[in-house]
Amino acid sequence: MDELHAIIPAGGAGTRLWPLSRAGHPKFLLDLTGTGRSLLQQTADRLDGLAAGVHVVTGRAHESAVAEQLPDVEVLAEPSPRDSMPAIGLAAAIIARRDPDAIIGSFAADHVIDDIAGFTAAVREAVRVAETGKVVTIGLTPLTPSTAFGYIDGGDRLDAFATARSVNRFVEKPDLETARGYLAAGTYSWNAGMFVVRASVLLEHLARLQPTMHAGLLAIAEAWDTPGREAALAEHWPRLTSIAIDHAIAEPVSLDGGVAVVPGAFDWTDLGDFAALAAKSPSADAVWVDAAGFVASTTEQTVSVVGLDDVIVAVTPDAVLVTTRAAAQDVKAVPGRWRERGRTDLL
Amino acid sequence: MDELHAIIPAGGAGTRLWPLSRAGHPKFLLDLTGTGRSLLQQTADRLDGLAAGVHVVTGRAHESAVAEQLPDVEVLAEPSPRDSMPAIGLAAAIIARRDPDAIIGSFAADHVIDDIAGFTAAVREAVRVAETGKVVTIGLTPLTPSTAFGYIDGGDRLDAFATARSVNRFVEKPDLETARGYLAAGTYSWNAGMFVVRASVLLEHLARLQPTMHAGLLAIAEAWDTPGREAALAEHWPRLTSIAIDHAIAEPVSLDGGVAVVPGAFDWTDLGDFAALAAKSPSADAVWVDAAGFVASTTEQTVSVVGLDDVIVAVTPDAVLVTTRAAAQDVKAVPGRWRERGRTDLL
Repeated sequence: MDELHAIIPAGGAGTRLWPLSRAGHPKFLLDLTGTGRSLLQQTADRLDGLAAGVHVVTGRAHESAVAEQLPDVEVLAEPSPRDSMPAIGLAAAIIARRDPDAIIGSFAADHVIDDIAGFTAAVREAVRVAETGKVVTIGLTPLTPSTAFGYIDGGDRLDAFATARSVNRFVEKPDLETARGYLAAGTYSWNAGMFVVRASVLLEHLARLQPTMHAGLLAIAEAWDTPGREAALAEHWPRLTSIAIDHAIAEPVSLDGGVAVVPGAFDWTDLGDFAALAAKSPSADAVWVDAAGFVASTTEQTVSVVGLDDVIVAVTPDAVLVTTRAAAQDVKAVPGRWRERGRTDLL
Repeated sequence: MDELHAIIPAGGAGTRLWPLSRAGHPKFLLDLTGTGRSLLQQTADRLDGLAAGVHVVTGRAHESAVAEQLPDVEVLAEPSPRDSMPAIGLAAAIIARRDPDAIIGSFAADHVIDDIAGFTAAVREAVRVAETGKVVTIGLTPLTPSTAFGYIDGGDRLDAFATARSVNRFVEKPDLETARGYLAAGTYSWNAGMFVVRASVLLEHLARLQPTMHAGLLAIAEAWDTPGREAALAEHWPRLTSIAIDHAIAEPVSLDGGVAVVPGAFDWTDLGDFAALAAKSPSADAVWVDAAGFVASTTEQTVSVVGLDDVIVAVTPDAVLVTTRAAAQDVKAVPGRWRERGRTDLL
């Protein structure tokens, strides 16, 4: 088995978890599940033993915080956010220079997975499939006809593998009726954005599909371990197309039969909003009078709720947020509303 | 016109406005309406010009705060709370010793009244009726079939007065059907607990109906302006029956035809709970996303609400309360719940 290098793109402010998650201390740096480890640390912990190395790609603003939380990983700092393809591509190019046979796996910084054995088994299978030259995605076996995820349309089973299938196509978040059909078909997976691929294979696809980005990333990677790193970043990074790896590689390559999916049966959440957080974490202590819900707080203030079901209360030293499980997605609008009022300190 | 002395019994923690209102800084000491004046100060302001003197009866814990807020009034400190009859009776006995012809008027410390002219006219009429020897209550003309108030059943109009009626009886908070009947009859008023009576008349009723209390209050009043005040309070105050003036005087005297009502058409609220406060005061600044409601805060924390109608949020340095207009009455349960957890600091 070739060596796996784990890449963790750690970006995004997690505005649906505002005010806990901020631009300055985003979701992945927070211990949201009360385990004593941040989501990023849990992600790295999960890959410990599976991967020969862990590489976190993050913004410069978070470089030192990431290094402090994970002293044993390599931190690759992006000069500016360019979505996931440049981030993963940069790491792939750097890793490929050091180890031409390396397999890379990309894992989001904010996933919570309890079934480590199930996750490990899926990653190991994905690595074996990736050794055959495929771009491999780990899909999640759907439990409900969710309309919150994109789906992976799985095709024929791959010979010699226990669970892997070829991928027919990636499909966008469906409506409920369509989602019910996907669930019934039994061959669809939720797209969790986990990709495993030989670094050299990824770079070949990139050379073909995004040649300018490929050239830029190679130039940066060549200079990375030299005094020329900053100059190369300054020259090439601003010119890289901002695009997700799904759109840049996975979707077009799937149409040529180059993508496989390994279904993962493990539970999984990205703690995307307060409803997800409430489902995963115990509420902070509060007084509930004819009321129920979830409280998250970083202050010593007591919280009391009277006559409201399903309410969510988040308290920080500079912000109190009140919402419901049903409205949890709409929290993302709040930071912008404070920005409009000039309260950039709250972002 | 004989001189009116206004008595303001200022007690009660206002637990339905917790956490704004606390045992240590109760509702009447707070500027809840954003006018720059506390409810107590507004009450005194309203009586300025109407009354020859203002006398606030309050607990010893609040004596200095009241004196600070109202430097020109007499503060009578109760050693312990004994409900409104001993409080008003003490003030009446002290005032009667100084001015045997004095008319006293009792006005709650936490009422908010915008129509000062209407209030003033009603008080002046009540004083004139009180000069005839009646116990006079100022009733509020009902605007809705409210089940939140006790009612005054008004009888015949009194000769020589513009609006005053005799009182048939006081009735408890009715059910909705009964309240509709009261509203339709046109002769019922809301009982706002405002009484105007010649001090000597009140004391005569007290001598007849509560002779022990009468004797105790007279003994304290005799010693009040002497070095013997504390000794008299220590001897008599703990023995005074804890009873409201309504039950001790107004109800029994009404059965003998001794009570009159002056209907007041002015608007009025006792800011009893957050629903009342929200109706009277502007909300503190907040971000509302698909949401509406009321925010009161004594901290610099921002408040944001997403996806909730009619929500009420109150924020203080040690407590966040979330409720709804509909559940506002149930807030009174919250301090007790924190007390059960040993958080007496929150009371």
